[in-house]
Amino acid sequence: MRTGPEMHALVERLYPFCRSITGDGVRQTLAVIGEHLPLDRYEVPSGTEVLDWTVPPEWNIRDAFVADSSGRRVIDFRKSNLHVVGYSVPVDRVVRLSELRAHLHTLPEQPSLIPYRTSYYSPTWGFCLAQDVLDTLPDGDYHVKIDSTLADGHLTYAEHVVPGEVGDEVLVSCHLCHPSLANDNLAGIAVAVALAQALAEEKPYYTYRFLFMPGTIGAITWLARNFERIDQVKHGVVLACAGDRGSLTYKRSRRGDADIDRVFAHILKDKPHEIRDFSPYGYDERQFCSPGFNLGVGSLTRTPYAGYPEYHTSADNPSFVDPDSMADTLETLRTAFSVLDRNRRYVNLSPYGEPQLGKRGLYDSLGGRSDAKEAQLAMLWVLSLSDGDHSLLDIAERADLPFGAVAAAADALQAAGLLKG
Amino acid sequence: MRTGPEMHALVERLYPFCRSITGDGVRQTLAVIGEHLPLDRYEVPSGTEVLDWTVPPEWNIRDAFVADSSGRRVIDFRKSNLHVVGYSVPVDRVVRLSELRAHLHTLPEQPSLIPYRTSYYSPTWGFCLAQDVLDTLPDGDYHVKIDSTLADGHLTYAEHVVPGEVGDEVLVSCHLCHPSLANDNLAGIAVAVALAQALAEEKPYYTYRFLFMPGTIGAITWLARNFERIDQVKHGVVLACAGDRGSLTYKRSRRGDADIDRVFAHILKDKPHEIRDFSPYGYDERQFCSPGFNLGVGSLTRTPYAGYPEYHTSADNPSFVDPDSMADTLETLRTAFSVLDRNRRYVNLSPYGEPQLGKRGLYDSLGGRSDAKEAQLAMLWVLSLSDGDHSLLDIAERADLPFGAVAAAADALQAAGLLKG
Amino acid sequence: MRTGPEMHALVERLYPFCRSITGDGVRQTLAVIGEHLPLDRYEVPSGTEVLDWTVPPEWNIRDAFVADSSGRRVIDFRKSNLHVVGYSVPVDRVVRLSELRAHLHTLPEQPSLIPYRTSYYSPTWGFCLAQDVLDTLPDGDYHVKIDSTLADGHLTYAEHVVPGEVGDEVLVSCHLCHPSLANDNLAGIAVAVALAQALAEEKPYYTYRFLFMPGTIGAITWLARNFERIDQVKHGVVLACAGDRGSLTYKRSRRGDADIDRVFAHILKDKPHEIRDFSPYGYDERQFCSPGFNLGVGSLTRTPYAGYPEYHTSADNPSFVDPDSMADTLETLRTAFSVLDRNRRYVNLSPYGEPQLGKRGLYDSLGGRSDAKEAQLAMLWVLSLSDGDHSLLDIAERADLPFGAVAAAADALQAAGLLKG
Repeated sequence: MRTGPEMHALVERLYPFCRSITGDGVRQTLAVIGEHLPLDRYEVPSGTEVLDWTVPPEWNIRDAFVADSSGRRVIDFRKSNLHVVGYSVPVDRVVRLSELRAHLHTLPEQPSLIPYRTSYYSPTWGFCLAQDVLDTLPDGDYHVKIDSTLADGHLTYAEHVVPGEVGDEVLVSCHLCHPSLANDNLAGIAVAVALAQALAEEKPYYTYRFLFMPGTIGAITWLARNFERIDQVKHGVVLACAGDRGSLTYKRSRRGDADIDRVFAHILKDKPHEIRDFSPYGYDERQFCSPGFNLGVGSLTRTPYAGYPEYHTSADNPSFVDPDSMADTLETLRTAFSVLDRNRRYVNLSPYGEPQLGKRGLYDSLGGRSDAKEAQLAMLWVLSLSDGDHSLLDIAERADLPFGAVAAAADALQAAGLLKG
Repeated sequence: MRTGPEMHALVERLYPFCRSITGDGVRQTLAVIGEHLPLDRYEVPSGTEVLDWTVPPEWNIRDAFVADSSGRRVIDFRKSNLHVVGYSVPVDRVVRLSELRAHLHTLPEQPSLIPYRTSYYSPTWGFCLAQDVLDTLPDGDYHVKIDSTLADGHLTYAEHVVPGEVGDEVLVSCHLCHPSLANDNLAGIAVAVALAQALAEEKPYYTYRFLFMPGTIGAITWLARNFERIDQVKHGVVLACAGDRGSLTYKRSRRGDADIDRVFAHILKDKPHEIRDFSPYGYDERQFCSPGFNLGVGSLTRTPYAGYPEYHTSADNPSFVDPDSMADTLETLRTAFSVLDRNRRYVNLSPYGEPQLGKRGLYDSLGGRSDAKEAQLAMLWVLSLSDGDHSLLDIAERADLPFGAVAAAADALQAAGLLKG
Repeated sequence: MRTGPEMHALVERLYPFCRSITGDGVRQTLAVIGEHLPLDRYEVPSGTEVLDWTVPPEWNIRDAFVADSSGRRVIDFRKSNLHVVGYSVPVDRVVRLSELRAHLHTLPEQPSLIPYRTSYYSPTWGFCLAQDVLDTLPDGDYHVKIDSTLADGHLTYAEHVVPGEVGDEVLVSCHLCHPSLANDNLAGIAVAVALAQALAEEKPYYTYRFLFMPGTIGAITWLARNFERIDQVKHGVVLACAGDRGSLTYKRSRRGDADIDRVFAHILKDKPHEIRDFSPYGYDERQFCSPGFNLGVGSLTRTPYAGYPEYHTSADNPSFVDPDSMADTLETLRTAFSVLDRNRRYVNLSPYGEPQLGKRGLYDSLGGRSDAKEAQLAMLWVLSLSDGDHSLLDIAERADLPFGAVAAAADALQAAGLLKG
């Protein structure tokens, strides 16, 4: 899976499933991802203590509707799984519209759209619908039915690992707890799958760990279960809203100057983009960057969290997701990780004076020409700044040279015995 | 005493006294302040060694004039105490105008105003007068009389303490050594009195120590006598020129980033103001910020030191002082101290992942709504940044939230056991 | 030697010599410099290992030409020593023009100029000529002759030391390896000679060491031979391109905030100038600032390295060098070194409160005057900031006062026993 259309096809295939933070919708989604990528799936029992939280009961739903006195479904889960408030408890009774209204959620300012609502930790039930539809409902009795179960079960998440030369890890994390919402976050999932496939072909330096898990409680659970290994996580990206037509936004880690932050600042320079400082709301960077962990994990989106009118509504459907945008997100991540993977510190082994590049075949021997070449400049910069304090990215930025030229210079100098990795 | 008019009435009452760095004018002034505020008065004998200085002789003056040959007082201390150079030695003789001129001070560019001059440490005598008056004096003999005494006595200053929860102190210092000058510094004295009264009603966190003392030698004396206790002084403000119609100016401490500097920068944001870097001239911040002490003491004025044409002239009279401006200065100080008092560092006791706010009643349980509230944002920010390195003010600035919202969040989180003060 | 015209005369006198990185042209040049300045000359044998390099064979040339079949010299070393590629091996044969072309260098975009080319470390031969001349050469056979020797010998360089109060050193380094090029670097040599003469009359604080040596290999050789003494080098300037009509450019040391960098930033403020960050190409700052040495050595030029169209061409002749520009470069260096020499840190010996300046005769005793004088301000600033962390230059910049006023204040305070050097 490489192209925008292929990724878009995966979005469309995953779109109908009724995902939540637990339940069979998650498992269905992982099964499809597993067709592209071998996954390690984990099932964590309800009631498990995870950091400050507890894994909640598992929620599953088969059907739900509100029917009028004639039996006509005026709100029908079968038409859109957004119609039911996530984690609604079962209900089956007849109520007056006036009583029902307290359980109905609309978007009066976007009257044709169904909002997305959940209530994971406070047992209740509810329906979401277009304000336009609500306005047509006459007073009277309605049959309200939610055929759900909320019971001990499991929280489900999965990992896929692309092994690298070293055990130090880069996390790529996607939430998969939203039902029929496409940009948030099926687009992120599809890009992550394509990215994992591409990385596997490249034998990367770092080990890349892809996490497909429900938002918040999933990240909390993963962190709780991987507490002892967290020191291996050197970098990471939370990937979300990866397919809308907006330009890219990178949100810095809480550290603000982590390597991953500097990499994205560097590689985004040449395209329209926005860089935001960390804030403790958004996606699962909230958890990875909580002060106890404080990982170098940023977040890449196109239009960011809550930043577009379709956000958390029925308008976030597959047509809102653009294949070209997904391809651009994928390409950006590949570029970023190629820099991150190559961004190390070296030490100049001949630091007293410039080493004689000419005798090693590294220098144009006819002096006096003013058209010094980029490759030679890059070698001089790498030699000058490789004192253990500067990474190749530092050098590229200081020299205003392409990262690739600097990395190539480091390779040549290392091969000549002038540089130690 | 609360209102601008009440403070202005105090300025008017104190205006006629002939203050200097020592003498009965200071005692008279402290007696009136003592009607509003209990004071501890200190009398330090002349000749006492204080840091690099020596407490000078005490100066008192009863009368002074220059009279023409007809006996008419052409310069009369009874009309304005500015007419006599402060610390003038006694004199009683007849001199030619040509000889007298060496002892006369005018402001040729502000010909109708009497300048303010002193000569504390170099024994001399002199008169100050309007250039316009000088220009009318015919040649001839004049009877010059200054009925002053300059003799062993005392330097007088006073303190008022508003006790706080902790012994750590905030200094509020006002010079009271200027004779009939209203903005410099009777306005500052009046605002300080009102501020002390207001703080006393609030049971503050810090202990607030108000210092009413002569400029330079008073601060030097206080520092010498409190050398051992100086470590308790955590913050401070030198208050001067508190009543003119200009906007507020805050001058940073020598440290430049002391807590008090950051507090004033924060609370002045929303009104016209100027912030200046420290310089080693001005008022007694010179002493508090000398490199051996280097205290976190800034200076609040309206139009700053030497910045208005009425400065150190007879035009700095009560009508130059504006009740509304004094009220604004008072309110600004109260706001600043409310932030300073509340600006502490906390430690998140649940730093691994976000704590579950919902189960503690601290979070709106119906997820998915995009209108996150300020209070919830404030809690997330306080949790994210309470790592011991960030004060609540740091957090408010980083989060771009009102300080009050951040402080309220810290209270709620502390009450829930999630934060340690 | 003081004036622009005198320096220009030296440029003209040195211009005809055929300098290279070794050989008699260097010795001739040093002999002329030695008429102005006593020099210590060093001769380092070919084959000597110096850092990562080896001193090359010595190159000398007596004659060279390309003659047409009629015997007419169409390229003639006697007309310009730029015509021969530096370090050309001997040759004496007849070749076709088509074969000769591989050994000919021109500047097609500056067709009337002869380029300057060398090939120190890769044995070859070649001629440089104007494109206009090349275009006139008919096909046919040409007699090519270079009467050079490339054999064991020596690398020659020289030092001149102006002793100071302390042994800590300031380097002033000029390359002298270019043949008939005037701005690059005969102008730098002439300014250095005049500077050394001027410093000698002033008994400076630092010891100033002037280095006249070939570029790159000369600096490498000097560093290798002075490795043990390098810690004495506290500051330095590489001087080049000192006489063109452009404004001054200072290039920072690799450290970026070395004292010499701050001095030049300070003294250049008041004239047109450019300040550039360090880069590892240019002149011998490359060697002095290599990461193992990382000396506080910047570079002063007028139009910098490779920045003017005449650079490394026959147009860089004495008429390109302006006497007034050389005088300005000299004056700038003298000002910079006067600041550097005087820029020390002091400690306020009376740091608690302001010391009483009046009793030491350091303060205008008649208080209350608003026209505080620069000298008094300077004393207050020096007292305030002399805590061991701030140099006089730091203080001048913080106070926005002339360096001279600050230095004078330090002298007065030290004389009064208030400051320790």
